[in-house]
Amino acid sequence: MYRTHTCGELRLEHQGAEVTLAGWVQRKREFGGMTFIDLRDRYGLTQLVFDEKTNPEVTEKMKKLGREFVIQSKGIVLERSNKNKNIPTGDIEIEVLGLQILNASEVPPFTIEDESDGGDDIRMKYRYLDLRRAPVRDTLVLRAKMAHAVRSYLNGLNFIETETPVLIKSTPEGARDFVVPSRMNPGEFYALPQSPQQLKQLLMVAGFDRYYQIVKCFRDEDLRADRQPEFTQIDCEMSFVEQEDILNTFEGLTRYMFKEIKGIEISEFPRMPYSEAMENYGSDKPDIRFEMKIKELTRLAKGKGFPVFDDAEFVGGICAEGCSEYTRKQLDALTEWVKRPQIGAKGMVYLKYNTDGSLKSSVDKFYSPEELKKWADLFGAKPGDLILVLSGAKEQTQKALGELRLEMANQLGLREKSVFQPLWVVDFPLLEWDEETKRYYAMHHPFTAPKPEDISMLETNPGAVRANAYDLVINGVEIGGGSVRIFDKGLQAKMFNMLGFTPEQAEYQFGFLMNAFKFGAPPHAGIAFGFDRLTSMFAGLDSIRDTIAFPKNNSGRDVMMDSPSSIADAQLNELNIKLDLKQ
Amino acid sequence: MYRTHTCGELRLEHQGAEVTLAGWVQRKREFGGMTFIDLRDRYGLTQLVFDEKTNPEVTEKMKKLGREFVIQSKGIVLERSNKNKNIPTGDIEIEVLGLQILNASEVPPFTIEDESDGGDDIRMKYRYLDLRRAPVRDTLVLRAKMAHAVRSYLNGLNFIETETPVLIKSTPEGARDFVVPSRMNPGEFYALPQSPQQLKQLLMVAGFDRYYQIVKCFRDEDLRADRQPEFTQIDCEMSFVEQEDILNTFEGLTRYMFKEIKGIEISEFPRMPYSEAMENYGSDKPDIRFEMKIKELTRLAKGKGFPVFDDAEFVGGICAEGCSEYTRKQLDALTEWVKRPQIGAKGMVYLKYNTDGSLKSSVDKFYSPEELKKWADLFGAKPGDLILVLSGAKEQTQKALGELRLEMANQLGLREKSVFQPLWVVDFPLLEWDEETKRYYAMHHPFTAPKPEDISMLETNPGAVRANAYDLVINGVEIGGGSVRIFDKGLQAKMFNMLGFTPEQAEYQFGFLMNAFKFGAPPHAGIAFGFDRLTSMFAGLDSIRDTIAFPKNNSGRDVMMDSPSSIADAQLNELNIKLDLKQ
Repeated sequence: MYRTHTCGELRLEHQGAEVTLAGWVQRKREFGGMTFIDLRDRYGLTQLVFDEKTNPEVTEKMKKLGREFVIQSKGIVLERSNKNKNIPTGDIEIEVLGLQILNASEVPPFTIEDESDGGDDIRMKYRYLDLRRAPVRDTLVLRAKMAHAVRSYLNGLNFIETETPVLIKSTPEGARDFVVPSRMNPGEFYALPQSPQQLKQLLMVAGFDRYYQIVKCFRDEDLRADRQPEFTQIDCEMSFVEQEDILNTFEGLTRYMFKEIKGIEISEFPRMPYSEAMENYGSDKPDIRFEMKIKELTRLAKGKGFPVFDDAEFVGGICAEGCSEYTRKQLDALTEWVKRPQIGAKGMVYLKYNTDGSLKSSVDKFYSPEELKKWADLFGAKPGDLILVLSGAKEQTQKALGELRLEMANQLGLREKSVFQPLWVVDFPLLEWDEETKRYYAMHHPFTAPKPEDISMLETNPGAVRANAYDLVINGVEIGGGSVRIFDKGLQAKMFNMLGFTPEQAEYQFGFLMNAFKFGAPPHAGIAFGFDRLTSMFAGLDSIRDTIAFPKNNSGRDVMMDSPSSIADAQLNELNIKLDLKQ
Repeated sequence: MYRTHTCGELRLEHQGAEVTLAGWVQRKREFGGMTFIDLRDRYGLTQLVFDEKTNPEVTEKMKKLGREFVIQSKGIVLERSNKNKNIPTGDIEIEVLGLQILNASEVPPFTIEDESDGGDDIRMKYRYLDLRRAPVRDTLVLRAKMAHAVRSYLNGLNFIETETPVLIKSTPEGARDFVVPSRMNPGEFYALPQSPQQLKQLLMVAGFDRYYQIVKCFRDEDLRADRQPEFTQIDCEMSFVEQEDILNTFEGLTRYMFKEIKGIEISEFPRMPYSEAMENYGSDKPDIRFEMKIKELTRLAKGKGFPVFDDAEFVGGICAEGCSEYTRKQLDALTEWVKRPQIGAKGMVYLKYNTDGSLKSSVDKFYSPEELKKWADLFGAKPGDLILVLSGAKEQTQKALGELRLEMANQLGLREKSVFQPLWVVDFPLLEWDEETKRYYAMHHPFTAPKPEDISMLETNPGAVRANAYDLVINGVEIGGGSVRIFDKGLQAKMFNMLGFTPEQAEYQFGFLMNAFKFGAPPHAGIAFGFDRLTSMFAGLDSIRDTIAFPKNNSGRDVMMDSPSSIADAQLNELNIKLDLKQ
């Protein structure tokens, strides 16, 4: 060992001890013949003191030190005259008797401090330096603790952590696969798993009963903000359970995590049907830290001569408490905001419930004060509130109102990061109709079981069939999702058929699962959590990027390694492929 | 829940309780109007009793049941008249009152019993059925327990479990990489990691101090027996440590594993220099459960007129205790055995120390009884022992003797699977000379540090330079290996140069690591354990295959999934590659 103690360990009780520390030079300050160095390692900072008079040899070496030099230093623990209450080692300092420079450092391209002066690009290129900064490192330490908590909890419930393969079979359903050419099987490819979905179902067929895995998954998508081509799931599956058992088990896990990691007690999670979430929050992942529910105004607003509402399938609004004093400029900005293509509204109507009790709306000329008062009453609005109204096609308008609701909450500071409000969204539709391809797609995936009471509608009204599927939503973010699975081979075949697979295609892609179902598949259900996102939420970050030690950028590049990169022709040749670059 | 209890849970104390169990039909036996079914789940077996007289409706359903049907059954716990002491639930049985068939099963292609009648191929194709067999499932449960023990121990020592990326940069050094074409970066490829070596070193540069990860690694090798294209490592790295610190830490981990998982106390591990291992055991991974050390006879055997020995660089032998009665036929078989190409000896000389004290050798005519007695004395042989002698080039003969030593130990039953004898092999050579390419290769990898006292020989006698590298060997199997790393950019550049890299090549392939070393790299060292192999050893298996839930066969195929497989032209097109199949 190069050290007797870490840089976060020494206290007043060590006074007088001879110790050896090793670490990085964080800061160097001279002060009247004395030099102070903050020595840093993962565990903390300790102040080293060099007295130029007493030890010229050490002083000589000390003068060479710059930021981020790696040193080993022997000395005596002394009580500080000028204590630093901000750090745990602030009561002591080390009078340095011996100094070894273990490694020099060039001047780093950005400062290694909690607040760095480095831009994103340079910090990504020198990620190993960025990781030295406490906020970045702390997130990864948090992540490790969270993984340990997950494992402790699930091991305690008899779950078996089982590794599933990374080189699997490509299945065109879902997002794009990353593929791996097989040298030993020319012309053939493995795929990297988008999730171990079918493998975990096979483990249930195998009688493993309770499975989990913290596992890397891969999706070759065009990377939108906050997506990574490789990401980590907490992947779980259970046999002989019903939906409610899954919800209770993983609500338990989530509560345990909050308690263990954040010290926060969370009571029972509400369960909200998908239809209710859409109606009240315009989202299948509602942020319920605040109310501001969407109310439908269609009946009240139609037939009064305002053509925009008269032509609309749906009119609805939200009530922003205490916003009646919003200025013309603020309201115009909100109107522009909802008209952006991401939101897609045609315009916005407002109704101010002024503090003097009067009502003022942008559509005054179509509605009497009594009519507007009915609007206000519908929201339970008080003087001082502001009602914002959108109209159009139903689902689209609900979603736009959902977005507007979040925006208003941001403006009002209602989305406090230290408050956590989880809920289960349940009863998702089984199928989604796609106008473009004129077919149904599985909303979750093709293995999701319909609600038994809805099965009869599969032929007659497929769009209305609800699934035994559920999402765990916290603060408006989808943290996990899963479903009860189909375990009957007949029903599974029917699902594939509904999704437009010929029996041959279903056999080619899912044959091994269909086959497995012939030999006594148990009822089973499961869930997967986005571990990066959960970590990001626990860390109070806005992005998943800093929850990952070595993330990739939006073009899927690791700018530190400079990867992906070209490979040798000999390698391509061995793999029986060649490049086919477009001009 | 489909059950109130598992099939391994009920005891006499539950007598009289009404319970619901769910599981698979293991066996069905009729016995004078009564039918008995062993119901199986992951947790055990419970006997169900059906009385045909009392419940005709249940009986009707029961008659349909075959092996591997999945059922749910309600009943009363009764004390058995005929107790089964072999299973924990053997004191009770369930009088069945209600029965639900949850899923039927076709007749499985092999019997789901501890000893199956299925051949390897069919069991791999129906792996989900093979995994139902207790010995296979138990190995995976053991593996999960081992992973948990590893994590508990290392978390307790402040190691941070950190995930490193799976999509990294291809580096031609070492084995062949699996590569992944990047759609977003046309013509470029990611590689799957053969190990996270450089990334964990960067985590040390980042100040993570103690890192570990149980991580999938990938090697596109022609699969010899007991290799898998994807395998799992326990990968570890520490900063500010010397070799001895690593040995102590991971000896501690290994001892903890033996104690926790196997209930075996193991004392301190011996440390053996590579040179001593080769000399005494003819192997860098000696099995020290038994002695039978190799002794050199060169000086005694040469110059006595036996041309084979006179021409040999090296003559050596082993002494097999109590084997002097080996017959002519047995000795001939051994001679044939050492002459196989895998061993490569030209022939074998024996010396029997007969129980009557006389000496009998195949080279009697060249050596006097006194001379032969000196051979026997060298081995400390007793009457009844058999000395086997090989000769030739030194290293090759040592290795052949090492193999012969293991074979004799097998014949003598000295390799007891329940006995564990770990040791550290240390002081490996830094470099290996390759006759074919006329260059040195890194014996471990190019980041391994030479012993400081040997650095001066790097220019003058590179082959003699020893590395600060170490292997953990248990029972003749290499379970782990690692090294102290170079952390000085000058020495690292020199190493790349010695290994034939131009500065440009080194920069292209390892630039990010070389760069990182400019900014204060700490001294660091690490180790990686083969987790599949360790599991296989703990499970008492001869192969790693059954330590993996879904393994691949020797052509890298997953025969269950039928992967790898062809992919669509559109997919190839998007990836900017095309097939280039040879005729």
